[in-house]
Amino acid sequence: MDAPIVVLDRPQLGENIGFVARAMMNCGLRRLRLVRPRDGWPNPAASAAAAGADAVIEGVEVFDTIEGAVADIHRLYATTARRRGLSTPVLDGEGAAREMRAEAAEGCRLAVLFGREASGLDNDAVALADAIVEFRLDPAFRSLNLAQAVLLVGYGWWCAGPADGRDLRRRGDLPPEDTSPPATKEEMANFFSRLERALAESGFLRHPEKRPRMVRNLRALFTRARPSTAELGALHGIVESLRRGRPGDPPDAA
Amino acid sequence: MDAPIVVLDRPQLGENIGFVARAMMNCGLRRLRLVRPRDGWPNPAASAAAAGADAVIEGVEVFDTIEGAVADIHRLYATTARRRGLSTPVLDGEGAAREMRAEAAEGCRLAVLFGREASGLDNDAVALADAIVEFRLDPAFRSLNLAQAVLLVGYGWWCAGPADGRDLRRRGDLPPEDTSPPATKEEMANFFSRLERALAESGFLRHPEKRPRMVRNLRALFTRARPSTAELGALHGIVESLRRGRPGDPPDAA
Repeated sequence: MDAPIVVLDRPQLGENIGFVARAMMNCGLRRLRLVRPRDGWPNPAASAAAAGADAVIEGVEVFDTIEGAVADIHRLYATTARRRGLSTPVLDGEGAAREMRAEAAEGCRLAVLFGREASGLDNDAVALADAIVEFRLDPAFRSLNLAQAVLLVGYGWWCAGPADGRDLRRRGDLPPEDTSPPATKEEMANFFSRLERALAESGFLRHPEKRPRMVRNLRALFTRARPSTAELGALHGIVESLRRGRPGDPPDAA
Repeated sequence: MDAPIVVLDRPQLGENIGFVARAMMNCGLRRLRLVRPRDGWPNPAASAAAAGADAVIEGVEVFDTIEGAVADIHRLYATTARRRGLSTPVLDGEGAAREMRAEAAEGCRLAVLFGREASGLDNDAVALADAIVEFRLDPAFRSLNLAQAVLLVGYGWWCAGPADGRDLRRRGDLPPEDTSPPATKEEMANFFSRLERALAESGFLRHPEKRPRMVRNLRALFTRARPSTAELGALHGIVESLRRGRPGDPPDAA
């Protein structure tokens, strides 16, 4: 079973990357992806702070965009301390761990996205995610440093593992008879581009000031449905068919 | 109910004391006791690293011995990564959190003892404890830094507490900030009628023998997204906008 991949958006201090690597090793996580690390990569400060977590440091992959870093991912979790006005479901640490175990058991490739030390994740990044993870912490003091947030995710994952023999069933499974694999983030991104282009053409997105929010909400809605690859194909077909309209000469439209 | 007191045996780096204070604040812990901190007390490096956890730093108590620091404690827990050949019971993080909650509810004053950064607790210190806490972590890499060990204790304590009113665990609950009510079955049925009519007109449902199955699968997909009434309104708008297409004269479709 593949453990979740950790994705850090624009991490600033190399030391923090090293601490993240340690926290990952504590919990059996090995794969770390960095999106535009401020001080470049490799980073000696990261290696020094990793103190033994070499397996993580040596395998680090670097990306230019979050979209690139999650292109091959089936289920993406975003950690955030603030609500975003998105319809994306919010899970606590335990709920997220349970879901991740169940999804990994189904063969999904998972990733967890963490924002910058100072500012966290942008709304656009959060909107990419299937679920938001919000830890149960004292509401009076919710600010966690980066490595500690990674530790809570990893610890949840590890403790929810098979050794505990817990019930991994969850709601929101793929429809049992649909044997098509879940859509990847790249496939979802392609669908969103096409949908948004069609909606721009048709005039649905005609108010520029409302557009970013409408687009985010639509993405959250379709992400929530967790379409399979086959279902996504049907959605592409629907957009195309509706866009082309009557010229398609449907035989059954009496 | 009194939260556990954190006791650090001979902490070395002031920075680590500050990080411990932050982790405590995250989890509703306020009382920190230090046994012979290497650099004395107060320690400016600790205050700087505490970054807002002033309530903990200002209340720090300093002791000469572990025995003195735990004199008024009813139940003492010791955290350690190594077994000691002691007959002291060993609990995992979750088990320790459950016990602590039960004991605190009975009016016990609790403390959790953490060893030095490099070497952990002496056997003599561990022998003072009523129970040992050993976290479930990857056996191949068990070394946790001090603040992270404190975070796992505190997080367990906080999560084992009374629910904070928001149940984040159930997947697919209504989006927290979307105040629009969930769509009723009747509203869903109206949307499906309209979508299916549009798809029949556009030719997407042109094969009569495939149609019942396609319709069922589409209904399942949109049902799984659990749209709110507002989101359903947006979906109606999308279908209508795509169906009408360019003739609708969209201002932004150049």
